[in-house]
This record gives sequence, C-alpha cells and structure tokens, in this order.
Amino acid sequence: MDDIIRMKVAQASRLLGDLGIPLWIAQFARETYEHPDPVQRLVVGTSVTWPAAFIIRSNESTTAIVGMGDVANVEATAAYDEVIGYVQDIGPILREVLVRADPERVGLSYSADDDQADALTVGMHHVLLRCLEGTPYAERLVSADGVLSALRARKSPGEVERIADAAGDTVQLFEMIEGMLPAQPTEREVADAVHRRIAEMGFTTAWDADYDPVVAFGPEAPFGHAKPGHRRLQPGMLVHVDLGIKRDGYCSDLQRTWYVLSEEESRAPDDVLAAFHAIVRALQAGFEALRSGVRGWEVDAPARAVLTEAGHEEPEFALGHQLGQSTHDGGALLGPRWPRYGNRPELTVEVDNVFTLEFALRTSAGAIGLEEDVVVTSSGARYLEQPQTELKYVQLD
Amino acid sequence: MDDIIRMKVAQASRLLGDLGIPLWIAQFARETYEHPDPVQRLVVGTSVTWPAAFIIRSNESTTAIVGMGDVANVEATAAYDEVIGYVQDIGPILREVLVRADPERVGLSYSADDDQADALTVGMHHVLLRCLEGTPYAERLVSADGVLSALRARKSPGEVERIADAAGDTVQLFEMIEGMLPAQPTEREVADAVHRRIAEMGFTTAWDADYDPVVAFGPEAPFGHAKPGHRRLQPGMLVHVDLGIKRDGYCSDLQRTWYVLSEEESRAPDDVLAAFHAIVRALQAGFEALRSGVRGWEVDAPARAVLTEAGHEEPEFALGHQLGQSTHDGGALLGPRWPRYGNRPELTVEVDNVFTLEFALRTSAGAIGLEEDVVVTSSGARYLEQPQTELKYVQLD
Repeated sequence: MDDIIRMKVAQASRLLGDLGIPLWIAQFARETYEHPDPVQRLVVGTSVTWPAAFIIRSNESTTAIVGMGDVANVEATAAYDEVIGYVQDIGPILREVLVRADPERVGLSYSADDDQADALTVGMHHVLLRCLEGTPYAERLVSADGVLSALRARKSPGEVERIADAAGDTVQLFEMIEGMLPAQPTEREVADAVHRRIAEMGFTTAWDADYDPVVAFGPEAPFGHAKPGHRRLQPGMLVHVDLGIKRDGYCSDLQRTWYVLSEEESRAPDDVLAAFHAIVRALQAGFEALRSGVRGWEVDAPARAVLTEAGHEEPEFALGHQLGQSTHDGGALLGPRWPRYGNRPELTVEVDNVFTLEFALRTSAGAIGLEEDVVVTSSGARYLEQPQTELKYVQLD
Repeated sequence: MDDIIRMKVAQASRLLGDLGIPLWIAQFARETYEHPDPVQRLVVGTSVTWPAAFIIRSNESTTAIVGMGDVANVEATAAYDEVIGYVQDIGPILREVLVRADPERVGLSYSADDDQADALTVGMHHVLLRCLEGTPYAERLVSADGVLSALRARKSPGEVERIADAAGDTVQLFEMIEGMLPAQPTEREVADAVHRRIAEMGFTTAWDADYDPVVAFGPEAPFGHAKPGHRRLQPGMLVHVDLGIKRDGYCSDLQRTWYVLSEEESRAPDDVLAAFHAIVRALQAGFEALRSGVRGWEVDAPARAVLTEAGHEEPEFALGHQLGQSTHDGGALLGPRWPRYGNRPELTVEVDNVFTLEFALRTSAGAIGLEEDVVVTSSGARYLEQPQTELKYVQLD
C-alpha cells in the first residue's frame, strides 16, 4: 500500500493548490491502531500511539510530528519528508511548524456530510485549539473535506485496476455459488463456502463478514443487511446475494439474483419477472445518466423514477455509492436529496470516479437485487464487469 | 460480549445519576464498522451504517435511533429498550426524544484528555448542532468524559476475572518462549511461534500483531515499539519480550526479561543486574503507592524517583496505564504530569481499577523491561500474576 499512500500524498498537494488551502493537517489523532480514522489508510499509512500530526502542504512538503515511540514506523512508510519526534508535548513543535509555514488557511479533516472525510474528534479539536492559542492560526482553520472527497473519488488508473480485479474475482465467486445452488444448501452454507474461498484467495470480505455476503432465500428472508440464516433453498424461491471482497486494499460490491424453478415451472412468476426487468431498466437509466459534470441526485432521480412509475415501492437507499478503499467511499453519492445523505447528492460526478449502481425490490418469491460496478470516463460510464440483465434460473438436482 | 454491554449500560445509568447528567448521547456516529469508535464496544455492541444515536438516561431508560437497515442488528443486542428506525432524516426523531426527556444537561462522548472517551467527530458534532437548532438543548451539551472514564475504569468482578485469565495465558506463553531460547532462535521466529500459539488458543494479540509481541535481542535491537527482526540470539544478550493477548474481549499486557549466559559467565554483567534490580524496586515502589484515593502521578513519581536517584535515565513513558477492553484503557494514568498525557495523571485511582506497572532501561547487553498487571482493592493493590523479581537466565543448548 505504501506506493498508493505516496501517490495520494502527492495528489493531495496538487488538490490543496487547486482549492487554495496551503497547509492541511490531514490527521491529528492518537491511539489510531484501535480506532483508525478514514484519513489514515489514504494519506498516513501507519498507526500511532501518541498524539500525532500529519501535515501536507500545497508546495509538496510534508511533515509528520509523532511521539518518539512512533518515529521508526512513520519513517518506514517513506511518505513524509520530515518526521519529527517528541516526548512530552506535541504543542510547541506543531506551533513552530505552522509559524514556519505561515499558511493563510489551515485545512482540517472533518465533514458534516461525508463520513469518509470526517476524521478529527471533538476532543482532538480542543487539543488543537489549545495548541494554537495566541497564534493567528486558530482563526484560519477550515474544513478540508473538498480535498478529502476529491482525493478519494478521483481514482488513478492503478486504483481502477485494483477495483476491477476485485470485481472480476467476485464474479468468479458468483459462479461458485451458482454451482452450489442445485444441491439446496442453506443460506449459512453458501456464506461459509464463500468465506472459505475468499480466504483461500488470500483476500478478505469488503465489509463486516457477518453481512458479507448477504444470502437471502425466498420471501421469508429479511430484506436488506441481515445475517445468512439456516433457511434451506426450496423450489419457487429467489436467491439474492450481495457480496464484495477487498483485494490489495480495494473493494468490489456486486449483487446477483437467481430463481429456483419448481418442477412444473419453466419461468419465474410474472411479478418476479416484472420487478427484475424494472430494476434492469432502472440501473440502465442510471448508467445512461452517469457522466462527468452532473450532480449525484441527477443520476439517482431517473433510475428511481423507472421503479416508482412502474408502480414499485420506492427504494430506501441511494442508487449508487462510490467504491474504493472502502465499500462506501467518499465524495458524490448517486442518491436522493434526503438529509440522511447530507450534501453528497449535490456533489458533481467526475471522470475517474468509481460507482455502484444498485436497486432491490421485494416480490412474492423473495428479494431481487442487482448491483454493478462502473467507472466514469470522458465519454460516459463503463462497466467493470458484465452486468446481469437476465434472471438466472436454477434447476434443482 | 452482549452481557457485558448490558451490564455496562446499566452501570452508565447509575454513573449519570451520580454525575448529574440526566441524558447521555453515548454514540452519535455513522459507518461505524470501518471506523469503530471507543464507545462502541463498551455500551453499543454493534456497528451501524447510517447516522445513529444511542441514548442512555440516568432513569435507566435507553433509546437507539438508527437507520431502518440497522434496526434488526441493534434489536439483536437487546441492550436498548427502545429501537426507533428512520429512513430519510434522524433529526426530527432525535429532537422528539430530547423534548420528551427534557434533560437539564446532555452528555456527549468527547474528551481532550482521554482518547478512550473521545468518540464524537467534529462533523457529527456539526450535524447534531444543526439537529438541535431552535431547541434549548444545543446550549445544554457537556462532555460526558467523566462517565466514560469511570465506566471503563471501574471493573466488575467478571471483567477483572477476564483480564486475570488473559494474564495467566500470557504467563504460559512466556514459558513457551523460555523453552525456545536455548536453541538460539531469531526474534522473528519467537514472534511467529507466539502468534501460532495464540491462534491455537483461539485468542488474538492485544494490540497490532506487528508489535505484539515485541521481541528484542541484545544491545543492537531498537528500544521500544519495534517489529521483531532477523537478529539471532547470542550469548551475552538480554531478551526482552512485551506481550499481550485479548481473550473474551479483555487484554493482558506483560513484559519479561532474560539474560543469555556465555560459557565463561555465571551471572549477568553488573550494569545489567543493577538496572534490573532498580526496575524491580521502582515497580515495587509504585505497587506500594497504588491505592484508592491517590492521584495517578502520585504513584508514578516515587517509582520514577527510584530510577533517577539511582542514576538511571528517566523513562519516556508512564509507569502504568489501565487495562481492559483496550490495552491502553481510559481513566486515570499512572504517569508524569506531561501535556502529552492531558489531565489523566491528575485523576484519582479507584477500587476495581486494573493497571499495568512497567518500566524499561537500556544496558550494555540490551533492554530490560518488566511489566505486571494489578488490580486495586480496598486494601491496596493485588498482582494478577506472579511478578518477575529475579533476572531469568538462559543457558544455550
């Protein structure tokens, strides 16, 4: 990961210049092994035990001020030019670094809107204000959430490749799952097999393994993020799987749906097929609306309208979120303008953003959910894998 | 862990009454799987994806307001009487819960002094202030760090037992290490063997496995928190191991030191023995000073004085930290009054606190470090394992 960290630190310098923030205290934190914040994996690359400040400037110089016990680990990442150790008090050194740089604005890592840009705690903010007492810098503090959003959202080709590789491996896992279904496993058995295979691949789940994968059989399974249970697959049931893996630090997030035919059936019930094709059309509408320069909600709205205009219930979730080091990565969100999402549906889609496109509906045979991973290019969106456009059928053994 | 969470929630209610805070928003956070905060394992017990508020009142009623997708998981912990789900906006429900309770003061989870009590982010604090606009509650917000410190620090008998069990298993790991040393392993080989054994036991390391255990051979090994290297054990070297495990959610943290005799030696060099016995005497002085009612620094000072008065370098670390769900648990710290430690050396030692007592020194043969785990009782301190008071010798094969 160290090369990604160094690349992101350099990218941050350029963004700071663009956004007019000469100096950014990217991380100001303590004991970050147990409580890593969202900035850490992006531009810090190691944990610290004592209060520490990781500073990036628009002139490309970088400074880490860390407890003596953390110096060796921070030096080992080679991401910060200058690593200063202290024993008793971080305050005087931090003040000195700020005085030397004398920035017009000092960026801090917090955001009311974007959890992936919200790192600084209220307690550490107090510590910082105490540090800066009597200097002009206490008055110059601003949120650097624009830097953080862009830093997460604008993927390098190497980052897109990692996400695409993770998506490719996830498609293979779906093939393995499809192979298991005719033998009528339980939800739990499918999830366990996926976990074993991910471990063999040397990767991890993209989110909490209790809910990754979600495996839901039939209409009695809970809708949404629930743990796979002891329900056994029966004819007439839908199989819905939501699955992501993390490979080389980057995540995939995909959903697939199958229908299990009973002996007398040759296709799924009408309401199932209607819902399935409504979701396909909705995602397609989102895919077509997704291009650089539009706002997040402008991609969600036409997709959402396909479902509601066809008489389906309105989804309680956004059409899509960004994908990267986190399954729910920062920056613009393809979602409705609900307070729950803060200002993120108002943010602009950019080239090199990677998004999911996903919707789910309930039917008489269970949940249908589809989710695809796409990258925004200069000429629109591009799928990172082959999207599901037809309901897959399972014939029992 | 759920029984511990329910016990801690009940204990929190009583503490809120004692401290005059009728209502505590224990956690106000979002996406807490990737970025768990220090309150979560203590009184929440599950992660959430959408903005959520976990509220504990001094009258023992508890309310969780969470996104619809998180309701089932929060209900499953059975720690909160009332679980309210929302779809678009947490604001109106949170306001309604506050208006209904109409508290004189509203506690929040942040602390400038104690990282284990510092959970709320600056961004979520903004979200909360926006929520409370036009209500009297925005003016009634206070830090609940006193609640959090006490909640972590005052251990139940069940918690002390778990820590003692972890310490007992750690002593067994030291015996295994002692058995390996005559064959002259490398530092890395010792650490790898410890990791395998901990995995076999079904436990995990207490902190980052890169630095747990610390295994340092001889005078060339880095002093402090460094990764075990490829240094091979030789006669005339000290062996210093700092090791902790987490068992049933609770941590141990112990240090032991051995000396490897060369063929012509029957005991360690004089400077090694002098440093070893100075540390033993220093920890003993700390142990004797440790009783309920004293301040943290009053335990550190006499121990530190033993070393400096004997002409040794002053340790750059506190004598002791609390031990619990985290290796560095919240509350009073047995440390010097340095700004790095905030107000924690000023806090008062209480019955049922569990502390480490530890010091380390450099010698001609390498580092000596000793660390013991102790619980404060009504009649002083009690060791949770047998302390090391004599230097252990290793005879090579």
